[in-house]
Amino acid sequence: MYYSRITAALAVEDRIRTELDTVVDFWLKHSHDTVHGGFFTCIGRDGTVYDELKYVWLQGRQVWMYCRLYRTMDRFQRPEILEAAKAGGAFLRRFSRVSSSTSQWKCAFCLTRDGKAVKIQRTIFSECFYIMAMDELSRVTGDKDMQVEAEQMMEQLTHWVQVDSSGLGRPKLPGDIPTNSMAVPMMLLCLVHQLTQDRGQEVVQKYRELGRWCVQQILQHIQRDGTAILENVSLNGAELRGCQGRLQNPGHALEAGWFLLQYSAEQGDDELKTTAINKFVELPYQCGWDKEHGGLFYFLDVDGHCPTQLEWSMKLWWPHCEALIAFLMAYSQTKKPELLDRFFHIYEYTFSNFPDAKSGEWFGYLTQDGKVALDFKGGPFKGFFHVPRCLYMCERMLDHLLANRG
Amino acid sequence: MYYSRITAALAVEDRIRTELDTVVDFWLKHSHDTVHGGFFTCIGRDGTVYDELKYVWLQGRQVWMYCRLYRTMDRFQRPEILEAAKAGGAFLRRFSRVSSSTSQWKCAFCLTRDGKAVKIQRTIFSECFYIMAMDELSRVTGDKDMQVEAEQMMEQLTHWVQVDSSGLGRPKLPGDIPTNSMAVPMMLLCLVHQLTQDRGQEVVQKYRELGRWCVQQILQHIQRDGTAILENVSLNGAELRGCQGRLQNPGHALEAGWFLLQYSAEQGDDELKTTAINKFVELPYQCGWDKEHGGLFYFLDVDGHCPTQLEWSMKLWWPHCEALIAFLMAYSQTKKPELLDRFFHIYEYTFSNFPDAKSGEWFGYLTQDGKVALDFKGGPFKGFFHVPRCLYMCERMLDHLLANRG
Repeated sequence: MYYSRITAALAVEDRIRTELDTVVDFWLKHSHDTVHGGFFTCIGRDGTVYDELKYVWLQGRQVWMYCRLYRTMDRFQRPEILEAAKAGGAFLRRFSRVSSSTSQWKCAFCLTRDGKAVKIQRTIFSECFYIMAMDELSRVTGDKDMQVEAEQMMEQLTHWVQVDSSGLGRPKLPGDIPTNSMAVPMMLLCLVHQLTQDRGQEVVQKYRELGRWCVQQILQHIQRDGTAILENVSLNGAELRGCQGRLQNPGHALEAGWFLLQYSAEQGDDELKTTAINKFVELPYQCGWDKEHGGLFYFLDVDGHCPTQLEWSMKLWWPHCEALIAFLMAYSQTKKPELLDRFFHIYEYTFSNFPDAKSGEWFGYLTQDGKVALDFKGGPFKGFFHVPRCLYMCERMLDHLLANRG
Repeated sequence: MYYSRITAALAVEDRIRTELDTVVDFWLKHSHDTVHGGFFTCIGRDGTVYDELKYVWLQGRQVWMYCRLYRTMDRFQRPEILEAAKAGGAFLRRFSRVSSSTSQWKCAFCLTRDGKAVKIQRTIFSECFYIMAMDELSRVTGDKDMQVEAEQMMEQLTHWVQVDSSGLGRPKLPGDIPTNSMAVPMMLLCLVHQLTQDRGQEVVQKYRELGRWCVQQILQHIQRDGTAILENVSLNGAELRGCQGRLQNPGHALEAGWFLLQYSAEQGDDELKTTAINKFVELPYQCGWDKEHGGLFYFLDVDGHCPTQLEWSMKLWWPHCEALIAFLMAYSQTKKPELLDRFFHIYEYTFSNFPDAKSGEWFGYLTQDGKVALDFKGGPFKGFFHVPRCLYMCERMLDHLLANRG
């Protein structure tokens, strides 16, 4: 690194560390339900709980994040963090699974404060975050049962995705063509990483084939002669008709990018590393960055039509989190300075616009021109996850880079 | 009317008539699928079809609107309008109903271009617009079968709403409290009006009790000691907890307002008229009008929390259409000049911001400060309905007012 980049990286690392502390404190202070267990996730700008519903994605993610911080960063080895993670895990295990005639593994999407199911999604994502939570919690507590539970649920998920989705409850309709949505192989690849990391060879072996399948499914989203990542493709990797087929979600593609980079590093697969960077990191940034106002668009149409999602031009926190991780990881693996410069550029926009200097934590939803559009810190889809995961991963990567700059 | 108001009303009426002609021409030109029948509804700014999916709500609404214009306005008694309505009705009857084990009346939400079901909603709204289409079409064609079909589907709908909703396919969950959502009694009241208008005493009698029930259900949404209309309440009219309970949708309340005004006029119920104006027309305008930028907010939280809907502060076309109808109808029934002035005020904002001077028709989605956020003319929820219905109703009311100004 040139001296100027080292100076910049030191300043950024310092800011990121402070920010992570602030964010952890915010959720420790405002989100714990000491009466019923679990976490409040609808939290206003100043920390007020404005709704008591408990979203299962966010319960699972918060347990995972607490455990990961506790397990891997010395300064977060605090009893209150471990206790909160355990309490969240207990709430999840007790309430989130809904019994049905077809499967014992389906989880609700949303629960009342005291754990009654309010809504079930006909997708796999509540279950994904349940698995992440259980596996990470088992690593902290040493509770083997949780690991077994995570792997059993993973088996059900894989069955729903690869063999028969009827257990998810969607009616089969003649016009509803089965689709490869990027979210599905991405999440499964993320779970393969979660379940196998530092586990014995037996577990690694068990998920090897699934990992390969996920990568192949993700790579199918490279379309238009390699010039675009599309969010939805057919099961055999062809472009779909209409809006659904033309949809681009730059933040999602960037997240897939760093999942692939992580996988390619584990496997020592340089070809995949290059593809991940050129296609899943560079392309979404090129097409997704708003040249007028800065920031990443939420949705785009590859042919330039207006997307039908009302929020398409808004700037959401999480794509920026994923972009920061993706570019810093790409730099870490290649040492190409332009990738680090891009990281700094995204950092500049992100840290100028999302953090709330007044009450801590980040705003989640900005207008196209960067004004705060929704001022809450937690909502049905924003919890203790993307912000701290980004800060945690970037802090660690910067630490490592700076320690080895010699 | 004072002279200045007459002058203003004449100018507005003229603009509205021209606008209705332009809007009808836009859809006649761009939305007809001459190959498979039915209507394209995803239509870009300049008229290009950007997606071929056919949304059933919008198929039904377009059939209804064409028939209503053909039947009640001389200048729209054009063969091409009648033919298009018939072709749309035939497409609906042939493809939109999906057979299931529980009911022969469930309709899809969305079809492929050639009529294959893509998605089913677990609500009653596709069916509502099917009924509207069939009843209005039967009035134009004299086809008694369609009227019978509309009434049979109405029976099924009423059963789903009042007796047993399990046929809609939602799983019963312990935390999912049955709710009175304003949309349901509103739509049923609208259908009661549709099915009974100018029909014989037998039909009027058949739906009398249902009409009363709808009004009583709508009035339950007056909450907070009469100071607010809330979008969702419990089945016995109590406020619900959390965001769902605090949600306000000013455009929806205004639409309910003119449904109630229409009903109160038919019944000669002056008390209901007063309630409709004070609670469902004035209150939503007072709370929903953006004092800074003008226009009606899409969603609000009665306690001032930030709504969780990402589009809460956007200005959508249809609440403005409903507000225009509501204030002009309120004025027509009371002759209170301040209601007419409010109509002019809303007209000013609406006609300055929504119509597209370049390609005709209206933009549907503006940012809070009035910039075009999505530039298409038709999308999954915007078709040939709110704009022409508003223009049609306002033109007729203005005609009547000006003819009787004495």
